[in-house]
Parts: sequence; structure tokens; C-alpha cells
Amino acid sequence: MNEDDLIARYFAPLAGAEGLGLLDDAALVSAPSGHDLVITCDALVAGVHFFEHDPADAIAAKALRVNLSDLAAKGATPRGFVVALALNTYDEAWLAAFTRGLKADIEAFAFPLLGGDTVKTPGPVMISVTAFGLVPQGQMVPRTGARAGDALYVSGTIGDAALGLLERQGTISAGQGGAHLVARYLVPEPRTGLSAALRAHAHAAMDVSDGLIGDLTKMMRVSGVTAEVYLSDVPLSAGARAVIGDDEALFASALSGGDDYEILAAIAPDQAQAFEQAAMLARVPVTQIGRIEAGQTPPRFLSRSGAPVTFSKGAFSHF
Amino acid sequence: MNEDDLIARYFAPLAGAEGLGLLDDAALVSAPSGHDLVITCDALVAGVHFFEHDPADAIAAKALRVNLSDLAAKGATPRGFVVALALNTYDEAWLAAFTRGLKADIEAFAFPLLGGDTVKTPGPVMISVTAFGLVPQGQMVPRTGARAGDALYVSGTIGDAALGLLERQGTISAGQGGAHLVARYLVPEPRTGLSAALRAHAHAAMDVSDGLIGDLTKMMRVSGVTAEVYLSDVPLSAGARAVIGDDEALFASALSGGDDYEILAAIAPDQAQAFEQAAMLARVPVTQIGRIEAGQTPPRFLSRSGAPVTFSKGAFSHF
Repeated sequence: MNEDDLIARYFAPLAGAEGLGLLDDAALVSAPSGHDLVITCDALVAGVHFFEHDPADAIAAKALRVNLSDLAAKGATPRGFVVALALNTYDEAWLAAFTRGLKADIEAFAFPLLGGDTVKTPGPVMISVTAFGLVPQGQMVPRTGARAGDALYVSGTIGDAALGLLERQGTISAGQGGAHLVARYLVPEPRTGLSAALRAHAHAAMDVSDGLIGDLTKMMRVSGVTAEVYLSDVPLSAGARAVIGDDEALFASALSGGDDYEILAAIAPDQAQAFEQAAMLARVPVTQIGRIEAGQTPPRFLSRSGAPVTFSKGAFSHF
Repeated sequence: MNEDDLIARYFAPLAGAEGLGLLDDAALVSAPSGHDLVITCDALVAGVHFFEHDPADAIAAKALRVNLSDLAAKGATPRGFVVALALNTYDEAWLAAFTRGLKADIEAFAFPLLGGDTVKTPGPVMISVTAFGLVPQGQMVPRTGARAGDALYVSGTIGDAALGLLERQGTISAGQGGAHLVARYLVPEPRTGLSAALRAHAHAAMDVSDGLIGDLTKMMRVSGVTAEVYLSDVPLSAGARAVIGDDEALFASALSGGDDYEILAAIAPDQAQAFEQAAMLARVPVTQIGRIEAGQTPPRFLSRSGAPVTFSKGAFSHF
């Protein structure tokens, strides 16, 4: 099977009208008058961002969803995507499952395939997605806009995917809650529903993909501020809570591990109530976990007793 | 060096204003009123699309130029790009050269870096570029629009890169002309200057990246027509002509090998003279090599004597 056959059989049926049936070298996209096109790009490599033997439909879903998560954090509505896919073999069963996974999320998120490229590689499978979203002109939610006094919010629950990865690797055994944690690692839930609330109320937002601690540190640095986080307020799922128990190292893993794909947002105090209400209407749980403060130092984390807690640098660090 | 340091050191200095200094998860792009945004995506893998030990600035240039070539074929003006870069090591000298190569073409083609992603891979280096161009609304030149009676044109010269690859591999020895052929393989020259002439005069166009024979066959199939090509009219460089001589197999390699990045265009007969004039003003040589005809059969190739010539399927085929 050559590249054209592969595209015709597996990808052309997925292409939206603007993908021109994937018969052309290019796709067209336009933003309606008064809108900006937001672009984001996230690549996944087998053995790095997913396991080679993960179900191919889950790999496809993850590749789209990590990009949908970025769009949501920017307040953007999904508009479409292009995908560059590097394959080391032409495995028809794998391709059928992969494109089935794409199709499901293309439909679930009204997120058409516009174009792309398929290439051979002697290395691991790599999927690079460039995603497009729409925002009303000038309303993209920046990462750089957090201000001292803002309330710091996070969506959903933190640490499930990091613990799911540990469960998957056999490092921990989460019992009954394990399947939920592994599922959260395998297929993230992009917080698409939160984008309008972020546009209306957030000074700054980003998605948490490299761990809460690292990503918060990043958002504070580029905003030129710092933050205080109340660790007891960080939302944990029942499964995460059960497996963490009193294990401080596991709690640190939950806070510093990656793949949460939740949204971190800085909200002006006078907008906090409206933001919470908008999030509730969008059925996305949000929790205040701290406050933005003036200063250039790294964020401070306070334990239940109010004592400062230090994390060593990097993911999977210990107390 | 972590990903943030790498981006800050090597890529942020290249980012255009819309790249937001690469401090955000996303970039913004807008098409001026009355324009469409054309999107194209081409990925290159070390060991497949370039040699691992090619100069890193040439690899960067090729990654951009294969996409600029697609935009030119669509009649689009370069607008900007995002790049996903998978690296197996953090080699600072390589990265410095790679980003120097990007910078040179960002400036040469007024083609700003808007965003991207850098990831680690245990495999070969991979560079996936998604490129954006602008066309006046509804004026993208399609691949699918060739009509019976159109004149078939190609820009520049054909086969240089395929012969340059053979020279590079030691399969042939092209003597004095060898350096030119290798350079054509290493760093293609996107025909950006031809885009306005294509918009004004072409029914269909595509860039020749997988060999003239294969790509013409593809353009005819998606347009629902066929073509007759006069082989003696296919433009060859002096270097290609010298090394090919009477060697029919090498001539076939020139016609079926890839990496030309020239433009194949179908032009209505009453537009041919205006197209040639516009191309001349744009200083891009164009040559008529045949004619589009009705029918669904593969294109026919005629020798100098008018006899039909058959090529076996695929690249590097023989008579």
C-alpha cells in the first residue's frame, strides 16, 4: 500500500469539506469576520508520550485531546486540525483502529480533519497535530496575564493520570480505583466546555500537561507574578485520594506528574463568583487552590497546617 | 537543558509577533478580510527525507521549503508556520545550526515562526511543519481543476535532485555538474515567485515532490483527465543533461525521482501566453511539456521520435 492508497482508504473518509477530500496539497480555513484563529501544536512519540502497545484508538484520541485541551485553555472553540503521522509499518488493523479513534473525536468535538502528511520512519510512531480554534477577535486567553490578587483555580482533579501511569507500570497498586486512574492517563478529557467561561472571566489560563507544580511555576514566571497554593484544597479524585493515603511521595507525584489536561486559571476576585457559576453551567468542576501574589519567586505551597512545603525540582520529586 | 530553556534559547528569538514570544501555548493568526488561509503540512524524517549528517541549517531550510513549495503551487503568499521537532539528543551545535537555517529562510521568505512543539524521541530526528499562506478568497489554485485542452507546464528543471541523490550515494559520478545536482537535492528552491501567475492563469497546479511521472499521474487522476507529455520538451539542467547523456535508465530516474519541488500547472490555451509572460516577469522559467486530454487512462509519454514510452510503476523505474 502506498501513501495515496493509505490516505484514500483511511483518512479521506474523515476529512471535512475544507480538507477537500484530501485530494489536494493543502486545505483552506477561514475565520468568520471578527474572529481570530488560534493555533496550537502538540506532538506525541511512542515510548515517550504513550506506550507503543496502547490501543490505537486511544492513541488517536490522546493526540487530538491534548490539542483540544490547549484550545480550551485559550478560550477557543475547536475549528479543525491537520495531522502528520510517521509510521514504521503499514499495519492495517492498527490504522483502522487509529482512524476509528480519530473519527470518534472528530464527531464528539465537531473538530474536522483538514489535511496532513503521512511518512515512513525507521523509528517509533509519531503523531504531530496542529489544531485550530476560533476566538472572538482579541479575546484569546493568554498565559501571561495573571495579576496579583487573582484567585487561582484548577478544573477537575489533579494527579489521576500520573498515578494511572504508576499503576500501569506496576509501581503502585490502586485496587478498585486503578482502572479510573489508568483511563485518565490513557485518554484525557479536554475541558472544551470551559472555554467560554475562561474568555469571559480569566486573566490568564493554561492547560496542565507537565504537572501542576511545573506548569503553575511556568505561568507565574511568564506573567511576572508568583502564587500561594493551599495543598489541602488541591482537588483529588476518590481513586487518587484512596491510593495516596498518607504517602507524601505519592502526593508529590500527583502534583508534579504530567498528563492532567486540566485547566489552571487566574481569575480576578470580582469575577470569581461569576466564573464558578459559568463553570457549573458548563458542568466542569473548578476549585480555587490559591491566590496570585506579587513577586518573582517560585510559587509557595502550604500544607494543611499552613507550613510551607518544598518540592525538589522536576517531575516525580519527593518531599 | 529542559524544553523551556531550549525554546527560550533557540526558538523564541525566531518567533514573530503572533508567536507571542513562544511564551504561550498557542499562536494567533488572522487572514485579512477577503482572504482565505491555506494550510499545508509536510514532515521530514532523518534517514528517509534527508541524511542524518546533512548540515543542520540545510535540513531546516528543506523542512521550510518543501512547505513553501506547496504554498506556491496553491497560489498562496507565505504567512507563517509552526514546527514540531522531535530530537534524540540535545546537541547545542546542531540546534544552533538548525535555528540559523530557520532564521535565514524566515527572513528570506518573510515567513514568521508562530509556534510549535519540541519533544524527545528515541528514534530519528523528525521535523513536521504546518505552513500557512494567504490567497484572495476563493482563489486557491486546486490540484483537481485540470481540463482537457489545457497546456501542461512545469517550472525550472526536472530531475536534478534525483540525480543529486544518486551522485551523493556514489551511484553515478556527474563530474563538474555534480555539486549543482547535490545542492538541488539538499536545499530546494520553492517557486514562491510563481504564485501570482498561477492564481491568475492556472486551472490546476501542484508541486512535484514525488517525481514528475507520479505526481502528474496523481494530478490527472484527481482532475478526471489524462495528459500527453513530449519527453524531449521536459526541461533538464546542463548538469542533468551531461550526466544523463544517452542513458535511458538515468533519464527515467530523473523523471520519476523525487525532490524536484518544481511546479506542474494546467493552463487554459488562451491563458498560456499571459502565463508565460507573468512567469518571465517573476523570473521563474516555465516550459510547456504537454497537453491535458480527456480520458481516465494514465498519462502517455512520447519519445523524441513520437513513439510511446512506458515507465514501470514507482520511482527509479527503468524503461
